[in-house]
Amino acid sequence: MAFDICGNASSVHAEGRKARRLVEDARRAIAGAVGALPRNVVFTSGGTEANALALAPGLWRGSGRPVERLLVSAIEHPSVLSGGRFPPDAIHSFGVDSSGVIDLMQLRRAIEGAPPALVSVMLANNETGALQPLAAVAEIVHQAGCLLHVDAVQAFGKIAFDINAMGADLATFSAHKIGGPKGVGALVLTEGLSGLPPLLRGGGQERGRRAGTENVAGIAGFGAAAGAAIRAMETDAARLGGLRNRLEDGLRQTSEAIIISDNAPRLPNTVLFTAPGLKAETAVIGFDLEGIAVSSGSACSSGKVQPSHVLKAMGFGSDLAQGAVRISMGWSTTPADIDYCLEAWRRLAGTLLKGSNETRNGSKTGDFLGAIT
Amino acid sequence: MAFDICGNASSVHAEGRKARRLVEDARRAIAGAVGALPRNVVFTSGGTEANALALAPGLWRGSGRPVERLLVSAIEHPSVLSGGRFPPDAIHSFGVDSSGVIDLMQLRRAIEGAPPALVSVMLANNETGALQPLAAVAEIVHQAGCLLHVDAVQAFGKIAFDINAMGADLATFSAHKIGGPKGVGALVLTEGLSGLPPLLRGGGQERGRRAGTENVAGIAGFGAAAGAAIRAMETDAARLGGLRNRLEDGLRQTSEAIIISDNAPRLPNTVLFTAPGLKAETAVIGFDLEGIAVSSGSACSSGKVQPSHVLKAMGFGSDLAQGAVRISMGWSTTPADIDYCLEAWRRLAGTLLKGSNETRNGSKTGDFLGAIT
Repeated sequence: MAFDICGNASSVHAEGRKARRLVEDARRAIAGAVGALPRNVVFTSGGTEANALALAPGLWRGSGRPVERLLVSAIEHPSVLSGGRFPPDAIHSFGVDSSGVIDLMQLRRAIEGAPPALVSVMLANNETGALQPLAAVAEIVHQAGCLLHVDAVQAFGKIAFDINAMGADLATFSAHKIGGPKGVGALVLTEGLSGLPPLLRGGGQERGRRAGTENVAGIAGFGAAAGAAIRAMETDAARLGGLRNRLEDGLRQTSEAIIISDNAPRLPNTVLFTAPGLKAETAVIGFDLEGIAVSSGSACSSGKVQPSHVLKAMGFGSDLAQGAVRISMGWSTTPADIDYCLEAWRRLAGTLLKGSNETRNGSKTGDFLGAIT
Repeated sequence: MAFDICGNASSVHAEGRKARRLVEDARRAIAGAVGALPRNVVFTSGGTEANALALAPGLWRGSGRPVERLLVSAIEHPSVLSGGRFPPDAIHSFGVDSSGVIDLMQLRRAIEGAPPALVSVMLANNETGALQPLAAVAEIVHQAGCLLHVDAVQAFGKIAFDINAMGADLATFSAHKIGGPKGVGALVLTEGLSGLPPLLRGGGQERGRRAGTENVAGIAGFGAAAGAAIRAMETDAARLGGLRNRLEDGLRQTSEAIIISDNAPRLPNTVLFTAPGLKAETAVIGFDLEGIAVSSGSACSSGKVQPSHVLKAMGFGSDLAQGAVRISMGWSTTPADIDYCLEAWRRLAGTLLKGSNETRNGSKTGDFLGAIT
């Protein structure tokens, strides 16, 4: 529908006003979905741009001092790890435990006795699905006079999110992760946050916080997708959680599969697993030939064959990390799909894990043992 | 169609490969349309982001020195005037004549005897449609060891463009100006250009030059629109040029209308006119009530009532500048549309120009006389 609107949302004629209405309806939908005010929603070209916009030195709130440093967890998305507009020597990271959950002691140590920092922690990791203890993080961050950015891209629409209840000062969202169009996202601010310099300058769109003709169709699609995701969230979460358990139980029975982050709270829709000797690149092709789309590590780093920085941060050696396969489920996934996937895995496992015994007796075994301790 | 493809273009499974194919087809279409190599096309979220990416200190070619300064014409789009990633004190501008064509002497003076600069000149101005003398600009720029960025957003698809024949080192394009979707654009580089730092960092998309999940639907639409625009260009240009002359003749007959830039070579599809006493904001509403979408000044700065920086650079005073109304024509515009528009203008002019005589006898007359000398 939105493609039929040819007006420029910043023009005042009738076509422009129709476009403006689509954008503002979407803004209210996103704001409502995350507990923010519409005026604090800044539409961007996606999560990457929202993160680049968010991570800016000089942000401040109330009587607080402007942030001078950026602290990121080691499992953040590459667009956060790249540090936005902070100079490289002002960017520091802190680690996670073997379940992929951030280490609060390390966070405390990184914050203490240093200039104010912007801390960036994701709500759910995009590879493991592991949920991060954001209430505790927010408390630590704010007690130290620091600010908190939450990359909620992976979690949005799958678990409840309220930006104020979460204690986030600003948060990143993406449309395509909730079934909306690719190339649209948002940075959402809380009231009273100051000092955000625009990344794209020019026209006065988005209250001067993001120049450029609005992606009207994409933004309208984002708003619609957010509404649908929020309405379906509770039902979907329960249903997907059941499917996930069915998938994980099946994987465990038929192989030496290791479900990654399985003792951490996780999103209901993602399973990341590996097995000694498994090569993820080969597994993706094998599943693909069976008609099943799975990913090796994160899609963003596909193409480059290198082990996931997330699994590395969790202590996995390169052998197991390179075997990590991610299966994502959505609203259309059925129990029959899960059974089909497990049958495919049983057929594939014989070939894919061939040679794993030799490997386990060889020098790479240490990686495996190292990973599960 | 492209919305049916739910794959991530950077994933290797079948869905991902379909998305990848759409993106690469579009890349070839854009490259073919502008005479570049596909690998030198970087998709962005629009012209504003492409300009922000392009305007970077440190660009260099061959044995040339990296650019340290940015020189922009005074009539560039606000996203170019903002200077991208150049520090404010490294950004300088040069003027235009009363027809809205850049002053080559001023450009020469700004270049000479100073560190290497990136010069940014648009192919056609977005308000007046005036074409800029880019062959002469490119010669001056390259002889001085400088580099040339061309903002081709307004001209693309309306007049022929070949990035190498034009002498541009890099050029900006936008999809929605040629009938494609909003929120997509491209920065196109010529072979051998080095030193372009990404603006969005994270995933390895666009050969590491622009991180972020690709807007697959938007990019596919951009490619399709570019193909269609190029195929129709010559026929459309001749037809639109005829319609434009019909419109301008009519405007001149029925009022004291001044056609802006009418003695400069211009795009065939745009008419910018003004008249003493005309208030553009009121005119836009008047035309809108007649079912005709026109703009006051440039859409990007609508909402803020301030005179156009382009008309100011051309020497127009605030009275005439605030009356400037832009009428754009497209492939669907017919001679009957032009006649309808002129009839509407005749009906509106009586009211809209009411009081213009008083104004002309008052202190603001100087603006008008000043503008046309």
